[in-house]
Amino acid sequence: MSQKTWGGRFSGTTDARVEAFTESISIDQRLYRQDIRASQAHARMLAAVGLLSTTEAEQIVQALAEIEEEIASGRMTWRTELEDIHTHIEQALIARLGDVGRKLHTARSRNDQVVTDVKLWVREAIDEIDGKVAELQRSFVQFAEREQDVIVPGYTHLQRAQPVLAAHYALAYVEKLQRDRERLAQARRHADILPLGAAALAGTSLPINRDLVRQELSFSALAGNSLDISSDRDFVLDYVYALAVIALHLSGWAEEWIIWSTTEFSFIELPDAFCTGSSIMPHKKNPDVLELIRGKSARVISALQQLFILLKGLPLAYNRDLQEDKVALFGAHDTIEACLSVAAPLVQGSRLRRETIASRLDEGFLDATTLMEGLVEAGMPLRAAHEVVGKLVRECEQRHCRLADLPDDVLASLLPQRRDAVTFLRSRLGVRRALAAFRSHASTAPAEVQNQLRFWKQHLNM
Amino acid sequence: MSQKTWGGRFSGTTDARVEAFTESISIDQRLYRQDIRASQAHARMLAAVGLLSTTEAEQIVQALAEIEEEIASGRMTWRTELEDIHTHIEQALIARLGDVGRKLHTARSRNDQVVTDVKLWVREAIDEIDGKVAELQRSFVQFAEREQDVIVPGYTHLQRAQPVLAAHYALAYVEKLQRDRERLAQARRHADILPLGAAALAGTSLPINRDLVRQELSFSALAGNSLDISSDRDFVLDYVYALAVIALHLSGWAEEWIIWSTTEFSFIELPDAFCTGSSIMPHKKNPDVLELIRGKSARVISALQQLFILLKGLPLAYNRDLQEDKVALFGAHDTIEACLSVAAPLVQGSRLRRETIASRLDEGFLDATTLMEGLVEAGMPLRAAHEVVGKLVRECEQRHCRLADLPDDVLASLLPQRRDAVTFLRSRLGVRRALAAFRSHASTAPAEVQNQLRFWKQHLNM
Amino acid sequence: MSQKTWGGRFSGTTDARVEAFTESISIDQRLYRQDIRASQAHARMLAAVGLLSTTEAEQIVQALAEIEEEIASGRMTWRTELEDIHTHIEQALIARLGDVGRKLHTARSRNDQVVTDVKLWVREAIDEIDGKVAELQRSFVQFAEREQDVIVPGYTHLQRAQPVLAAHYALAYVEKLQRDRERLAQARRHADILPLGAAALAGTSLPINRDLVRQELSFSALAGNSLDISSDRDFVLDYVYALAVIALHLSGWAEEWIIWSTTEFSFIELPDAFCTGSSIMPHKKNPDVLELIRGKSARVISALQQLFILLKGLPLAYNRDLQEDKVALFGAHDTIEACLSVAAPLVQGSRLRRETIASRLDEGFLDATTLMEGLVEAGMPLRAAHEVVGKLVRECEQRHCRLADLPDDVLASLLPQRRDAVTFLRSRLGVRRALAAFRSHASTAPAEVQNQLRFWKQHLNM
Amino acid sequence: MSQKTWGGRFSGTTDARVEAFTESISIDQRLYRQDIRASQAHARMLAAVGLLSTTEAEQIVQALAEIEEEIASGRMTWRTELEDIHTHIEQALIARLGDVGRKLHTARSRNDQVVTDVKLWVREAIDEIDGKVAELQRSFVQFAEREQDVIVPGYTHLQRAQPVLAAHYALAYVEKLQRDRERLAQARRHADILPLGAAALAGTSLPINRDLVRQELSFSALAGNSLDISSDRDFVLDYVYALAVIALHLSGWAEEWIIWSTTEFSFIELPDAFCTGSSIMPHKKNPDVLELIRGKSARVISALQQLFILLKGLPLAYNRDLQEDKVALFGAHDTIEACLSVAAPLVQGSRLRRETIASRLDEGFLDATTLMEGLVEAGMPLRAAHEVVGKLVRECEQRHCRLADLPDDVLASLLPQRRDAVTFLRSRLGVRRALAAFRSHASTAPAEVQNQLRFWKQHLNM
Repeated sequence: MSQKTWGGRFSGTTDARVEAFTESISIDQRLYRQDIRASQAHARMLAAVGLLSTTEAEQIVQALAEIEEEIASGRMTWRTELEDIHTHIEQALIARLGDVGRKLHTARSRNDQVVTDVKLWVREAIDEIDGKVAELQRSFVQFAEREQDVIVPGYTHLQRAQPVLAAHYALAYVEKLQRDRERLAQARRHADILPLGAAALAGTSLPINRDLVRQELSFSALAGNSLDISSDRDFVLDYVYALAVIALHLSGWAEEWIIWSTTEFSFIELPDAFCTGSSIMPHKKNPDVLELIRGKSARVISALQQLFILLKGLPLAYNRDLQEDKVALFGAHDTIEACLSVAAPLVQGSRLRRETIASRLDEGFLDATTLMEGLVEAGMPLRAAHEVVGKLVRECEQRHCRLADLPDDVLASLLPQRRDAVTFLRSRLGVRRALAAFRSHASTAPAEVQNQLRFWKQHLNM
Repeated sequence: MSQKTWGGRFSGTTDARVEAFTESISIDQRLYRQDIRASQAHARMLAAVGLLSTTEAEQIVQALAEIEEEIASGRMTWRTELEDIHTHIEQALIARLGDVGRKLHTARSRNDQVVTDVKLWVREAIDEIDGKVAELQRSFVQFAEREQDVIVPGYTHLQRAQPVLAAHYALAYVEKLQRDRERLAQARRHADILPLGAAALAGTSLPINRDLVRQELSFSALAGNSLDISSDRDFVLDYVYALAVIALHLSGWAEEWIIWSTTEFSFIELPDAFCTGSSIMPHKKNPDVLELIRGKSARVISALQQLFILLKGLPLAYNRDLQEDKVALFGAHDTIEACLSVAAPLVQGSRLRRETIASRLDEGFLDATTLMEGLVEAGMPLRAAHEVVGKLVRECEQRHCRLADLPDDVLASLLPQRRDAVTFLRSRLGVRRALAAFRSHASTAPAEVQNQLRFWKQHLNM
Repeated sequence: MSQKTWGGRFSGTTDARVEAFTESISIDQRLYRQDIRASQAHARMLAAVGLLSTTEAEQIVQALAEIEEEIASGRMTWRTELEDIHTHIEQALIARLGDVGRKLHTARSRNDQVVTDVKLWVREAIDEIDGKVAELQRSFVQFAEREQDVIVPGYTHLQRAQPVLAAHYALAYVEKLQRDRERLAQARRHADILPLGAAALAGTSLPINRDLVRQELSFSALAGNSLDISSDRDFVLDYVYALAVIALHLSGWAEEWIIWSTTEFSFIELPDAFCTGSSIMPHKKNPDVLELIRGKSARVISALQQLFILLKGLPLAYNRDLQEDKVALFGAHDTIEACLSVAAPLVQGSRLRRETIASRLDEGFLDATTLMEGLVEAGMPLRAAHEVVGKLVRECEQRHCRLADLPDDVLASLLPQRRDAVTFLRSRLGVRRALAAFRSHASTAPAEVQNQLRFWKQHLNM
Repeated sequence: MSQKTWGGRFSGTTDARVEAFTESISIDQRLYRQDIRASQAHARMLAAVGLLSTTEAEQIVQALAEIEEEIASGRMTWRTELEDIHTHIEQALIARLGDVGRKLHTARSRNDQVVTDVKLWVREAIDEIDGKVAELQRSFVQFAEREQDVIVPGYTHLQRAQPVLAAHYALAYVEKLQRDRERLAQARRHADILPLGAAALAGTSLPINRDLVRQELSFSALAGNSLDISSDRDFVLDYVYALAVIALHLSGWAEEWIIWSTTEFSFIELPDAFCTGSSIMPHKKNPDVLELIRGKSARVISALQQLFILLKGLPLAYNRDLQEDKVALFGAHDTIEACLSVAAPLVQGSRLRRETIASRLDEGFLDATTLMEGLVEAGMPLRAAHEVVGKLVRECEQRHCRLADLPDDVLASLLPQRRDAVTFLRSRLGVRRALAAFRSHASTAPAEVQNQLRFWKQHLNM
């Protein structure tokens, strides 16, 4: 009898080049635990409905446990001609149990199996990644606490805009990562629907009980249409999409800290243990980890794209193209897992260069907007106040001075109707005063930032 | 005073080529209703906190309503040098109200505005698309009802696999579209967080009340960190991702019906009104609508990709690159809106060619698996039964006959221990009998399909 | 008679929604000149082989010229039900010439036409873009000349690496753009093969002469297989690929100058006329043009992706999906055309901030590698020299000094065997000396840079 | 001394997680031959200019040859902490030669090395792929010869259009593949420029001779600007782009043959050795190889996308992101290499099912266009002839007959002015006669196809 699962109708054997081309064992072997777990549940169900005897089911469950151990300990030999993980395990089972092993595949197909395996795998993968994202969130919260009193320039267009507290800055990333976790949670809900039981694509004439399997494998519901099941990879898309947005968020942060690590910015000191040097330039200390996080985002984003291209224009139901989904899925997962694993300690080990930051904080007119808001509060229409302050900035640029350096008469002339104009306006000038003036919800106002910080520490069980 | 919102500090004027290059009014003018609605809410809030008088706020709200009417009726002149929709509306306001108009922009930035506008727009867009997806679901359910008794071949690898009811087939798409609606609902939840109030990027020193605006605009919550707000486009990604998966689902269906419309398949008759002809070949009737639905999926999928590329590696907070998000967003939305608008009536107007389908239903051994399952039910191990039936198929191919044409003695020899072997096995042979034999949950078993059909009619209020 | 080109076999009329969905006239109207030029050539050929009389051909050529004028002057009414530019022009022709007009479409299809039109258009588009890339090259060469004596830090990993001449820096982009022009030239060669004459997909039984048309339209060769012609969009891919790489090069340059424009770097002064401000922050001067160039690269790159997704898995020959190629093609072209149009004057108008650059040139150990090379020249193995200088750098960091500030005895101890060690090594220390030390081909050595500059000025006819 | 190439200035050691995250040895070890070849050339050059003694160079060249042998035989131990292939080889050299080994890295950087290695690798890869594309072309030419007399339906919109010779059909793919080879040749020219000698990014103060290295490594020219060299990955893009278009062409062919392999089409018989079966459905014979070729196109296309995303927005010069280029490059190459390796024998082993094809050739009005062209030749304007034949087709559909079955009086009435109308028109009716009527250049006319076939056999040395 053929060791393949399908030899009966074929004359001759498969071309060796074809075996090498079509094999998936090099990729799907990492699903072995999930495959065995699903097969054990399947065997128990077959016994419950009478398609196996209880003894047979027990033998199968036991033998599968042994095979799992064999694989876990590296003693399984992978063979291209056995195509995939399902066939390897089934053949090992038959080698142990003979005809009893030949019964396990009753009322299921490999398509059935692989979707179930991948869903089990994705659920676990999501839990792992969610934990690592939370760890990175906690690292940013610690950073926020550690550096909370530091004022850094906030940027738009990479131009200095307004002063912000370092804590406020760090918590912006915590917010982004929180949305990532919501996306992961959604992807998990989509993966949590049991496919097993679609059989080939139309269901089966055998008296299976899908709900028993569902309970055994802790899925939340049963998928409702066998043709849909056999063609559905939405749950892979959902997970890889969530990973791709994580990659995006990481890429922006990495870019920012690469810029902050330049000689010119000198805002942040990365730990030596997270940098590398140059083989030719003896003075270099490069932010390689950040650059690779940024670069590896391309791999994850293009993995999502690969899935879209793969799935585009495929008719119902299973098509062999689908085998390629795992390359994208595993690649995206492994990349993000690796990035998160270095990102968290990198954040933990990095320190703001407070003196350098402070030494240039007066540059770039970070207080201009607060000054303008003072004029508005004093009754000037916003557009007029904007124009007025814009011209003051131009004047300062020509004089090479700060707004705070403008003489009293210039300030007084801005609010001729107010006697206390100079005092009133000076209370908004200079970066520290400008920062202290903030008060809106979600702003960088110190009290607001304290609220945000408290919220996140509680939310993240810190 | 400059008509731009930012002229004060600049010497000279903007280069005309730069105005043409940087303008967004040609794209964002479609946000005018959202922009006005948000500005009205903002004005009311400014009055509530004392930054405007009640009269001023009323004047502004009223004038904005007039401007909305002016734009709606096509009387607004769009001018490149006014950059964007926000500036056009503010200038129109100032032209009407003078200094009162100059106060509206208090405590907000255009970045603030545009994100708020786009969120309002996305919420409406999602509702529109959700309605159209539901309409397409109903069209498939009607198709399922209309053609429910037709048996069609089910395919894997585009090879005939097992027989399925046409209703079962059509409902597979209803399932896929349901997941699309879940994705839309999630995207809507993400869009339903009010950003307005981040101001430039750090919040404001003015005493605004964001929650008042939230209530006025019916957002479910307030975004919690101003720096995050100013850089966040996750909600655009989420919506375009949902659209891209819809595109994927539509592309697969289109591909399938294109194949079903060939001379060789002749499974389906598309309405003449949904086909076009050839300028050179007088006999052609082409499934252009389906081909374009398939082709246009590329536009939506690449719009998602455009957003990822756009956002990759951007530091905090607002960067002008973000302006380009609307090209992708509107393009993806419009394309899916157009595809759904023709897909639903196309499904409604198409008919299965029952005679052609029936005439070849015996080809392709659609009953082979059910025969095998009969052997399993009779006690043969699955793998052995698979091998046996595989060989029967090979034999039939050589004899050019169907499995049902095999003589009694061949069938009898398969189950030598059973007297009723021939009757037992013949009850599974032939496509109609094979179909009747199904019984598993979510399968194409007639009773199961009835259940599915009933569920969906109720769920879709039909 | 139907105004469509294919009404004969159809009963009933096309659904209006379908007309709106399938029309291409809103996109392909910009091909009108090319369509008319190709039709005139086709008519002359038909006359040459006797399928039209000479008078008929003359009438057609003349009437087409009038139609071109009508369109150019904006007097043509575009009608959705006339589908595309080909039908509009043919109907206008028939309206003028009756049965003579009805003869023009002899032995050609619209697929034939549109590929020919697009190839003609692409040839012109390439010439236009090539001219603009050359203009940008010349702008960089002028920049190189203007700033040639300025020394700027060269970066790897965005960390200061070695000093380079500004001219050397600017010429790096000239090299990249030169490769872009080679890519454009290749794309042009691929577009320069005449497709017209494939007719529907199999050729024609009428005695056409494709070579006459080829000569008339100045194509370099005839495409050799009608089925290939009808399905081939390689030439669109080739052009959009060339555009996408241009986008990539522009994005890198834009990123760099955005960073150089920060307060922290202050390396470059962008012209006010190429920057814009903020509606809320009166002090902002933002590098919007550069940001949009960077952001718009996403549109071009995703247009290439759109084409790949569109074309994936399409069987021979023409499929209606192909209509969507023009959305991607025109979008990519227009975007790059716009970017190049502002990039060249932006480069021309920008100035290095020489004082700021010079004031911090001593930071970052830009001379470390040259020092190490001095040790190598004096006989020390590279790896040892690298180690030695690395340790000196660490020492300088602790002392907060430059390498040039190290005392003589430290330098002397590096080359104990050389009496002139201090003089020898000091001749490499300090940025200006380090720069003067370069001598390898293609390096930033002043003489090398002069060579490069001379070469490019000659090559670009400056 | 650190085994890293850059330890001198660092305190402490690299974090083990960072070593695992940043290592490239798992990917770039396949460049070992190229790295050694380039190092040998570099050593000889160093000797030629006096930076090494002749003996030292000889020792190095010899030791490198031994190291190559060590790696080739699998005896090299790869160590994560040694980062990359360059460091492994240099360390092995130093272990053998001590200080002499420490001299090899003189005047070059690892960035220098890796670009050179990859260019050498790409040149070889292109030659390999070009050979395999040519082999596939020859397989299609053999197919064309073998099946040349078979008439198959030609399709547009997947609807039957006109009859074509199978040879004409097969040669369409030969044309596409020929353009692929031109793209490969262009990519090769771009890869054929020597980068080595850029050193860190600015060149070197040591007296190297780049042209000697160029000659030794057979590059056609020297790259002209060191900053450009250090940041340039255009040659990787060019090659992967060429691969992506090959993937596109293969995907279309695979799609077509998957459709042709259906029960409904039954146009082609794929060799059993190139198909696989189902684990649950004993009758299945699936075109897995074709499906995987189609599916794997997604991997190659997304590899191109990955490179674009990776490179977008990177400033000069080397950034660590670039390390990721090899993942995309090797993945795309390996995938296409595998696809081509199975595609050629698959084409060779497949046979048209002539009887099935012939049995339905009369369906679909394949002769309608030729009939119309007959009317045109007889003087009827094309548009009128199109309308007339369109109506005949409609009539035939109602009568359930072919055009050739129309009675004489119907045909005679079409050309009332011609006595021989019936004979004249009948000579164009029926698929064989329609096919024989073709005559235009590049058409499916038998004589034309013979020309094409002759051309390709000669061109491909068959």
